[in-house]
Amino acid sequence: GSLSVGLTGNRSISTQSLAPSDTFERRHNSATLQDVNDMVAVCGFKSLDALVEATVPDAIKRTDGMPLDNMHEPLTESQFLSKFKAMASQNTVNRSFIGMGYYDTHVPPVILRNVLENPGWYTQYTPYQAEISQGRLESLLNYQTMITDLTGLPMANASLLDEGTAAAEAMTMCSALARGKKTKFLIDDRCHPQTIGVCVSRADGLGLEAIVAPYSEFSKHYANNDVCGVLVQYPDTDGNVNDYQAMTKEAHDAKVLVVAATDLLALTSLKPPGEWGADIAVGSAQRFGVPMGYGGPHAAFLATSDEYKRLMPGRIIGVSIDSGNKPALRMAMQTREQHIRRDKATSNICTAQALLANMAAMYAVYHGPEGLKTIANRVHGLASIFASGATSMGATVTNKSFFDTVTVNVGAGKAAAVHAAAYAAGMNLRPVDDATVGVAFDETTSVADVDALFAALSKGMGASAASASAIAPSVADENANVPPSLVRTSKYLTHPIFNSYGSEHEMLRYLARLEAKDLSLKHSMIALGSCTMKLNATSEMIPVTWPEWCNLHPFVPQEQAKGYYEMFDELSKALASITGFDSVSLQPNSGASGEYAGLMAIRAFHQANGDHNRDVCIIPVSAHGTNPASAVMAGMKVVSVGVDAAGNVDRADFEKKVAENKDRIAALMVTYPSTFGVYEEGVNELCDIIHEAGGQVYMDGANMNAQVGLTSPGQIGADVCHLNLHKTFCIPHGGGGPGMGPIGVNAHLAPFLPSHPVVTESGAMPVGSDGGRKEPFGTMAAAPYGSALILTISHAYINMMGSKGLTEASKRAILNANYMANRLDGHYKILFTGKNGTCAHEFIMDLRPFKDSHGIEAEDIAKRLIDYGYHAPTMSWPVAGTLMVEPTESESKEELDRFCDAMIAIRKEIAEVESGAVDKENNVLKGAPHPAYQAISGEWDKPYSREKAVFPAPWVRQSKFWPTTGRVDNVFGDRNLNTVRNASGVIEGDELFEASG
Amino acid sequence: GSLSVGLTGNRSISTQSLAPSDTFERRHNSATLQDVNDMVAVCGFKSLDALVEATVPDAIKRTDGMPLDNMHEPLTESQFLSKFKAMASQNTVNRSFIGMGYYDTHVPPVILRNVLENPGWYTQYTPYQAEISQGRLESLLNYQTMITDLTGLPMANASLLDEGTAAAEAMTMCSALARGKKTKFLIDDRCHPQTIGVCVSRADGLGLEAIVAPYSEFSKHYANNDVCGVLVQYPDTDGNVNDYQAMTKEAHDAKVLVVAATDLLALTSLKPPGEWGADIAVGSAQRFGVPMGYGGPHAAFLATSDEYKRLMPGRIIGVSIDSGNKPALRMAMQTREQHIRRDKATSNICTAQALLANMAAMYAVYHGPEGLKTIANRVHGLASIFASGATSMGATVTNKSFFDTVTVNVGAGKAAAVHAAAYAAGMNLRPVDDATVGVAFDETTSVADVDALFAALSKGMGASAASASAIAPSVADENANVPPSLVRTSKYLTHPIFNSYGSEHEMLRYLARLEAKDLSLKHSMIALGSCTMKLNATSEMIPVTWPEWCNLHPFVPQEQAKGYYEMFDELSKALASITGFDSVSLQPNSGASGEYAGLMAIRAFHQANGDHNRDVCIIPVSAHGTNPASAVMAGMKVVSVGVDAAGNVDRADFEKKVAENKDRIAALMVTYPSTFGVYEEGVNELCDIIHEAGGQVYMDGANMNAQVGLTSPGQIGADVCHLNLHKTFCIPHGGGGPGMGPIGVNAHLAPFLPSHPVVTESGAMPVGSDGGRKEPFGTMAAAPYGSALILTISHAYINMMGSKGLTEASKRAILNANYMANRLDGHYKILFTGKNGTCAHEFIMDLRPFKDSHGIEAEDIAKRLIDYGYHAPTMSWPVAGTLMVEPTESESKEELDRFCDAMIAIRKEIAEVESGAVDKENNVLKGAPHPAYQAISGEWDKPYSREKAVFPAPWVRQSKFWPTTGRVDNVFGDRNLNTVRNASGVIEGDELFEASG
Ligand SMILES: Cc1ncc(COP(=O)(O)O)c(C=O)c1O
Ligand SMILES: Cc1ncc(COP(=O)(O)O)c(C=O)c1O
Ligand SMILES: O=C([O-])O
Repeated sequence: GSLSVGLTGNRSISTQSLAPSDTFERRHNSATLQDVNDMVAVCGFKSLDALVEATVPDAIKRTDGMPLDNMHEPLTESQFLSKFKAMASQNTVNRSFIGMGYYDTHVPPVILRNVLENPGWYTQYTPYQAEISQGRLESLLNYQTMITDLTGLPMANASLLDEGTAAAEAMTMCSALARGKKTKFLIDDRCHPQTIGVCVSRADGLGLEAIVAPYSEFSKHYANNDVCGVLVQYPDTDGNVNDYQAMTKEAHDAKVLVVAATDLLALTSLKPPGEWGADIAVGSAQRFGVPMGYGGPHAAFLATSDEYKRLMPGRIIGVSIDSGNKPALRMAMQTREQHIRRDKATSNICTAQALLANMAAMYAVYHGPEGLKTIANRVHGLASIFASGATSMGATVTNKSFFDTVTVNVGAGKAAAVHAAAYAAGMNLRPVDDATVGVAFDETTSVADVDALFAALSKGMGASAASASAIAPSVADENANVPPSLVRTSKYLTHPIFNSYGSEHEMLRYLARLEAKDLSLKHSMIALGSCTMKLNATSEMIPVTWPEWCNLHPFVPQEQAKGYYEMFDELSKALASITGFDSVSLQPNSGASGEYAGLMAIRAFHQANGDHNRDVCIIPVSAHGTNPASAVMAGMKVVSVGVDAAGNVDRADFEKKVAENKDRIAALMVTYPSTFGVYEEGVNELCDIIHEAGGQVYMDGANMNAQVGLTSPGQIGADVCHLNLHKTFCIPHGGGGPGMGPIGVNAHLAPFLPSHPVVTESGAMPVGSDGGRKEPFGTMAAAPYGSALILTISHAYINMMGSKGLTEASKRAILNANYMANRLDGHYKILFTGKNGTCAHEFIMDLRPFKDSHGIEAEDIAKRLIDYGYHAPTMSWPVAGTLMVEPTESESKEELDRFCDAMIAIRKEIAEVESGAVDKENNVLKGAPHPAYQAISGEWDKPYSREKAVFPAPWVRQSKFWPTTGRVDNVFGDRNLNTVRNASGVIEGDELFEASG
Repeated sequence: GSLSVGLTGNRSISTQSLAPSDTFERRHNSATLQDVNDMVAVCGFKSLDALVEATVPDAIKRTDGMPLDNMHEPLTESQFLSKFKAMASQNTVNRSFIGMGYYDTHVPPVILRNVLENPGWYTQYTPYQAEISQGRLESLLNYQTMITDLTGLPMANASLLDEGTAAAEAMTMCSALARGKKTKFLIDDRCHPQTIGVCVSRADGLGLEAIVAPYSEFSKHYANNDVCGVLVQYPDTDGNVNDYQAMTKEAHDAKVLVVAATDLLALTSLKPPGEWGADIAVGSAQRFGVPMGYGGPHAAFLATSDEYKRLMPGRIIGVSIDSGNKPALRMAMQTREQHIRRDKATSNICTAQALLANMAAMYAVYHGPEGLKTIANRVHGLASIFASGATSMGATVTNKSFFDTVTVNVGAGKAAAVHAAAYAAGMNLRPVDDATVGVAFDETTSVADVDALFAALSKGMGASAASASAIAPSVADENANVPPSLVRTSKYLTHPIFNSYGSEHEMLRYLARLEAKDLSLKHSMIALGSCTMKLNATSEMIPVTWPEWCNLHPFVPQEQAKGYYEMFDELSKALASITGFDSVSLQPNSGASGEYAGLMAIRAFHQANGDHNRDVCIIPVSAHGTNPASAVMAGMKVVSVGVDAAGNVDRADFEKKVAENKDRIAALMVTYPSTFGVYEEGVNELCDIIHEAGGQVYMDGANMNAQVGLTSPGQIGADVCHLNLHKTFCIPHGGGGPGMGPIGVNAHLAPFLPSHPVVTESGAMPVGSDGGRKEPFGTMAAAPYGSALILTISHAYINMMGSKGLTEASKRAILNANYMANRLDGHYKILFTGKNGTCAHEFIMDLRPFKDSHGIEAEDIAKRLIDYGYHAPTMSWPVAGTLMVEPTESESKEELDRFCDAMIAIRKEIAEVESGAVDKENNVLKGAPHPAYQAISGEWDKPYSREKAVFPAPWVRQSKFWPTTGRVDNVFGDRNLNTVRNASGVIEGDELFEASG
């Protein structure tokens, strides 16, 4: 009664004000409502909706409100985290003895917290701007050094996507080294099944014949001189440590290249592939401190001889010098890559696994060679004890030698009972056949685990259990079951970097020093067009390191992965609605992989229809380099179409090309909004024309951030698209990966979505009706759901934004881009806008006039931005001599203004060159960036002041991000290639880096 | 059979090599075995044991191997984490409606990850070196601004330990402001019981009489003019929002000061204490985004008027200027503090709660005034709906007004059934009496929770449940149950800093910018003597943010805290063995609190023995300032004894003082090893003499890092000691707290250990036999186990080190100090070594000669170290004009060498002054530190080069930590005091800081 002091005259409390207020959308979409109004006005519109209305073509506007099922309404951050914890807890985390390329590992806590859980490492972009990336470049150089040391081959790249695709890349290299003239590739049947699956699938598009056979029979195929290479697993999938030296000699005599899929931990004990003659080694660095994560993300590696380096796929870090002649790192030999070579590229790989490569490299830095050898000896010792014990219990160990994996015949029909006993004790073994189980040991296995295994064998076999401690004395202290001829004698990881940071303080500080060299989203906006560097929110990242998601082997029985399946289901349904498609495959683990998978599905569709001659893929010249590269991998011929002055597909040329290739058209690949940042009018008409010609439309979804909720690939008329979840859907870029590139397809393509040879029910995740028809084109990635662990991030984003929030994000992304374009217009020429003069979520600034008239290049402006504390926007792509700016919705108006202020200030600096006030060659732009060592230097011979060099804006005075090198010389580094530590050459890999010998 | 390829000739595998290798000790104790040998040799010894043998006096050597029960053998990092997860999961995390000063809160994920889980924030030291601490200084200035804005009082400090002790500090201030002449302090009986408990206990030592009475009766006590102050709770513990304005007027008329314990969230809605006349406001900032953590750590606050600032306890951040006349922050008015005023100090507080204050301040920055008000309105709205619903169900709401806490009479004898129904539904209410329950609402409460409460009432009362949504329309939208006269009308948090960083990107970058200004253990060794800045390992820190430890209210039924009790039990047993005592109290939440608690136990012991006249505490002049300050607080008179030239207690003076005070001796306070870093011989004899005189020996355990496993306070002869868990036992310093100061005592003191008024079975945690006798001296801290949450860190350290590892750490700490002393000897004079010429775990370098001869002061060297990338060692304590270096065992030889190289290089710079080669006033030492803005500046008028200024050593060229200001002027800032943003004065609080208006 007396309590309601105040109701008279007041409104009553609203449902809204009783709702939790830790809502997420306002944390993600940075501008305040006031800012939005101000920005809209600058753009000359009355409201945000009016701007969007004028920007997105009517023909393709989405009107259905984008229903998102049970993710339609947003959860708050805390609601999401508790829902997700409950979902995660439906996974059963057993001890894993499955092996097959995935092993449990202890992530060193100092690396977990300071790399994997640290936005200073996970929000970085690929190190294209070398001067503000020396930290991760150094770490990746460590990675390459680790790989070359362990494999015994001198050149390694800075990661690939997974072991299966790395093997496929090696196969492609073999083919390319034979200039495409040898069409057979042999695969030992004792390779991991998923590796075989990926290679066989990949061979198809490449026009190769992949033959799976025992390696002992390889030489039978050499007669016709049409074998380009062979692949073996070392140790093999059953655990055998085979001696491939004779096989290798035969292969080499027949001019056949030898690829070894191998295991880094085993290589601390085994003679490395490089020493027994392999030409290429591939594998996964997962067990070096990266969680299994139900399949990924993990870094794969590829190492080869010096001879073959120019055909090596992926990114390679190398040493060069900077403008002050000091050693400096940068990505080497980029001319090999698909953004340069397009349909001539030998690989489409773009986003790789930099973050995980860094974790693995740091694991080696922390443990050092002795620590790794200790782990290897324990793993091998436990496996040896287990093998002896199992033998003593009456089982038969079927492999003759092993490092960590023992295959055991427990008696006909008894395997099921052994598995059942193991499951009951919380352990997963590898199912082989009804008599045989596989048991793989790893860093986390203990003596008690071995006894638990004996107990499971005992129950299943009805024999009395052996005792690990009783057996131990009969096992040799090292290499008990490694063939003596294959015991490693060479040293590895001898560089000081692997021998100095074994204490946590040293490790912590090494990580901190490297982190401090790298500009990330922690510091400022990274407005890279086509890359969508948006907020990677903490609450999206928190679940990534929950053990319930981290510690699952990808091949566990599906009932142990219930949490994952629920998450996949929610996520793929949401992505299907977002893309306007019927089915989604979560397997491709990068955008480029998605392209390949989508095109392969199209290929399979045509073939299923008997259209075997449809092999032409029409691609605008403005397309990302991965598009033509992927098309070629999918066995298609690329026909380019031009674009007009406005950046749109040249309609006449397009129609001409369609007509010319009428019956051969397989697909059109088109990016939307266009790579020029424009909502092309008439894109739906292009789709119609292709469909009429019997082709399919592949939409590159890299620019999805401008579509979500406003239109969709399905609505536009595409048949398939990939999504870069590491762009639009918040997976952080990790300094060059991980990423995920799921594809959405229309129902008619659903039957062809990828499958998996081990996890047989997976891959397609149909959400529409495909009538249950399944004709998968093959396998795309080593793990059934690609890098499943990080799908949680995109799920979180969608779940916390809800349908309206996601749509609002698209609008804000468009607003932010248009606001900046408006602020910069007049100072710079803004290229390519839509019919109402607006851009999409990104825009291009033309810098060519400055070059033509006064020698100022895009690179000068990009490097000068570093002095202002900014990462350059995308440089010279899709148009040479331009910068493409994509701010994303997560940047505040203040940040956009700061960046614009920087660009406008730089414009004034350009004007000083134009007016002749300063020298054309010796000016603040050409001198940029200015590291402290140069700015402090005794001899300052520049015509501008030190302060102008390094403090060009007020915000850098308050808080300066220092580049650590002057401008890096790319050409010098490529001419004097050096891609590992310890190298000797024109520039030593060690000068000026840490822990140099 | 065929499997054992290799046993012939090999040794068989050892148990050791089958053991897990993720062992912790080698990560913590940084030097390698080779390093240890090299360092021992430099020290002139044959082995580490020989060095230790020569260093620790025989009379006190420990020989029992330090048994640690089930923590004796170390766990590996992964073993520990899984054991600890199991322990944590024994806690039951219910929804909390208990209130009483602790509320559930959403820790914003961006703050959780980037502050609480970030070594860049948690490993910092108290910001004594202002030039490399501007980040946390700015954040603490935000904290002070937030407190002053919300309380309506103009001066606030940068945190106190908890609300209870903050109230006690306010009581002490009232007494001091009355110059000790008014001996009564009145406490409203509706204050939180733990606050009353702490104040009443504290009054005892201070010679005050604390009278608990309803505030309506306060004025009855004013007649004798002996009341110094009164304390009320606003809102009170039952939830009432009382109007204290009349009471305040009466008090002021009687020259009585008014203290309000208050609540920050409520103050967004209620007229602030400063506006209704309170002189001092205190409270806890916990609910601003800091987990409850079973009681702490949380930041408490104290705000007062300008008039009383010089008597304000604790650290205060203020604005000053640097050597370039730019605004710069630093700790203000340090002359008030106990390290200067010693027994004249008004408080002993030293370590406070900086990290938690930063979290709370950032919470306000992130939410802004509107966000906070939204939360407050929801909390109040839900409470109002609950009150209406409960009333409609037939219960009686017994408080007349409320903000968030409703006290409800559910019917005689029915409370138990209501509690039972609530527990069954996973909810904790406050038990009041058999008819009454308390229900407090917080940020995390939802409408569904209110319905769940109705359901519990329904079950317990047998009435049908109300419905929240049905009631909502009858509740006013704001302040429905706040008396209109107490509705807040004034604005708060108007400064731009609280209105700019509401998106996660902005917040992330603000945190990153501030972090980048601060040197922490992420960067380099912080060799602060007496502070033991050792590794705070990640695996020790990981459990701190587990929800099972975080989300427990300290007053939950004990069966819900089983995990905590198991952890307390293991930890206190281990600490008892380590200290050589029988019982341990985990209540004191700082070292200084431990001192006070230990002395109060001694006091209680004497009184229980009828020794009421024992009130003299003998303290060496070399003691830390907290010792005399604590002794005074415990009602003792301090008698100082001198120290001899070697830094040892002057035996003659000591015996004289003992004789002079024979019958009055309460205690000796002694630090061991001495504050001079020496294992004093004969310390056991001092103990004997005191005991003979009837006194007790209090040992200050700050230097415990030199004792663990080698000797112990118990063995030496002490009766009680405190441990700074934030020194020896790895709790990170957090930039000035948190810490924990548990005390160990001999059995005869165990009965007197502190208790708690709410959690009645706790406090003492006896591990020895005290025969069940309990005569607790009172309550020490607001929560029964102090800052329970961070006890997990020390538990982790002990559990992963094991007894041998801990002992080895002590040896390595001694080795590292002696190695450095040896390397620096000859360059600097090393003061005070033991009888074999060795130091303990720290040593003192004498810098006085340089001052006397050439004007180079300790401060010049300390500031110059910053240019070399180092935090200065402890400066001018315990001896003016010196530096005290404590490297700890966690630093590698490389790091020690780098630091020594820096000191030796600085010695050469001093020599240049000595030789007259450079100017006495204008040189690289006097100019230090050199921030980038100065080094880059156009006018470089220094006689040395820019490069010499900022790149004096090779490692700073590789990786430079930049100070962000020139040398800060302390005097100027104290003369022109400005301790909040928005201030106007000689220096504006906002110039050059972020988001200035
Ligand atoms: C338009 C476009 N398509 C495809 C890709 C390739 O995606 P990923 O790097 O994930 O392989 C990119 C990457 O930048 C892109 O911008
Ligand atoms: C010798 C000594 N005693 C006591 C203390 C006080 O401890 P706390 O800061 O935890 O209150 C310190 C702190 O530095 C100290 O060095
Ligand atoms: O804050 C300290 O003096 O340890």
